[in-house]
Amino acid sequence: MSRHAQHPIDRAVALERGDGGVFHGQTSPDYANMVGPFGGTTAATMLNSVLLDPRRLGDPVALTVNYAGPVVDGRFAIRADALRTNRSTQHWSVAMSQADQICTSATAFFATRRDTWTHTETGFPEVPPAGDLARFDNAAMPPWTRCYDMRFVTGGRPSTGQGVDELDSLSMLWIRDEPPRPLDFVSLTAICDSFFPRIIIRRPQWVPAGTVSLTVYFHADAAQLQRHGAGPLLGVAKASHFGLGYHDQTAEIWSAAGDLLATSHQIVYFKE
Amino acid sequence: MSRHAQHPIDRAVALERGDGGVFHGQTSPDYANMVGPFGGTTAATMLNSVLLDPRRLGDPVALTVNYAGPVVDGRFAIRADALRTNRSTQHWSVAMSQADQICTSATAFFATRRDTWTHTETGFPEVPPAGDLARFDNAAMPPWTRCYDMRFVTGGRPSTGQGVDELDSLSMLWIRDEPPRPLDFVSLTAICDSFFPRIIIRRPQWVPAGTVSLTVYFHADAAQLQRHGAGPLLGVAKASHFGLGYHDQTAEIWSAAGDLLATSHQIVYFKE
Repeated sequence: MSRHAQHPIDRAVALERGDGGVFHGQTSPDYANMVGPFGGTTAATMLNSVLLDPRRLGDPVALTVNYAGPVVDGRFAIRADALRTNRSTQHWSVAMSQADQICTSATAFFATRRDTWTHTETGFPEVPPAGDLARFDNAAMPPWTRCYDMRFVTGGRPSTGQGVDELDSLSMLWIRDEPPRPLDFVSLTAICDSFFPRIIIRRPQWVPAGTVSLTVYFHADAAQLQRHGAGPLLGVAKASHFGLGYHDQTAEIWSAAGDLLATSHQIVYFKE
Repeated sequence: MSRHAQHPIDRAVALERGDGGVFHGQTSPDYANMVGPFGGTTAATMLNSVLLDPRRLGDPVALTVNYAGPVVDGRFAIRADALRTNRSTQHWSVAMSQADQICTSATAFFATRRDTWTHTETGFPEVPPAGDLARFDNAAMPPWTRCYDMRFVTGGRPSTGQGVDELDSLSMLWIRDEPPRPLDFVSLTAICDSFFPRIIIRRPQWVPAGTVSLTVYFHADAAQLQRHGAGPLLGVAKASHFGLGYHDQTAEIWSAAGDLLATSHQIVYFKE
């Protein structure tokens, strides 16, 4: 059990070890989406199965989660296999199943991080502090959004509903767990999938859309995340291309101090 | 056997079906890297195992390849499992082994593409045509670079060797298979991994570096790639963060007509 046992996200990603190295968990109503659970907690749960494994080496560096089929509200099983362990790196394959059918697959790369030359090439954007911005009104949104404090600088869900295209799909927002919770890999992973689908930002009308594959690159180690504490993170997300039923999304997650903690990428299905 | 059987890349990714749905292949000296094979052909071979599978549905949309351990020159086995098949989408897990040890793992997402609203948000950069640029001198480079015609607009491997940092890690180049070959998913996948490690562009000195995990999102279907033919593609690659032994890379692959054919992302180990 994690030391943040009281926070809703820790209940959502909680796993019990069963027979044969299989973990069991269940979806949380706190993080319910319109149908099934929020994909961010599904991704965080996949990662958590490796974090909890006694064979695990080091910190996560890369995680790819594939949403292969719907996750139904209720119990699920997760099997994590250490595919290859080297001196200071480790590759994992993870599968989540319900009723003996795989609903989510993942690969994860872990490593012992060490100090090297460091440089951030992307610039921290000029934005007002979180405290100067109004909190996003999530009254009409799915339950999981109420587990976050979101304050949009730009590219929140448009309220006009008039179907006028925006010039771009850029969103920038301050975001933190609600209630506040010290940052770790579980929380950060979920936040990487907390952006609304770019198609809905770019063309303000509600269309069916959902993440198919999500990749997260972690640029911070566990100690850095711990030092961050529970303050808001700046999220920046945009698409580069929409077409043939899918669009991509590239996102950056920054600390308020200007540290780039993670970058994430995803491909999103949309119907239109 | 593919219809481009004579091209070196088709020899490099060629697979023979063995027992129990396992494919067998071997590394190609044409695409040798400093040690082992070029990661681009390894990625293309992983994808090819699904392309050749009679169960395969539609075109690739997302591919993630994890370089879990060194690939030794010689024979390898590939096992591709269809994890989940839906009405118009399919998720795969692929593993490459040598001596019963996994050296490369992958996940792939395939789908029947269909026309939808289409828009490219990223702009095609202003660059001179390929014909106005000198061909990159690969005489001192590993064999695989001679399987490409590369013409750098910016960010080629610096020849000064004086260790002066560049202002950024941006590379832009025209690239095509050498000899020319009609574009398809195999060729495009390999090209997505053809960028030199960003750390070597940003800090012009040779350090050990290698891709750990590569993700490709395909924004074109098979018919679009076929229409492209054998002309040069514009590749754009940059990093956003270097630190703790790893850096990321984001890349775009454009047709000369201004179509964004693929975006790709990777996390790269570096020693320094």
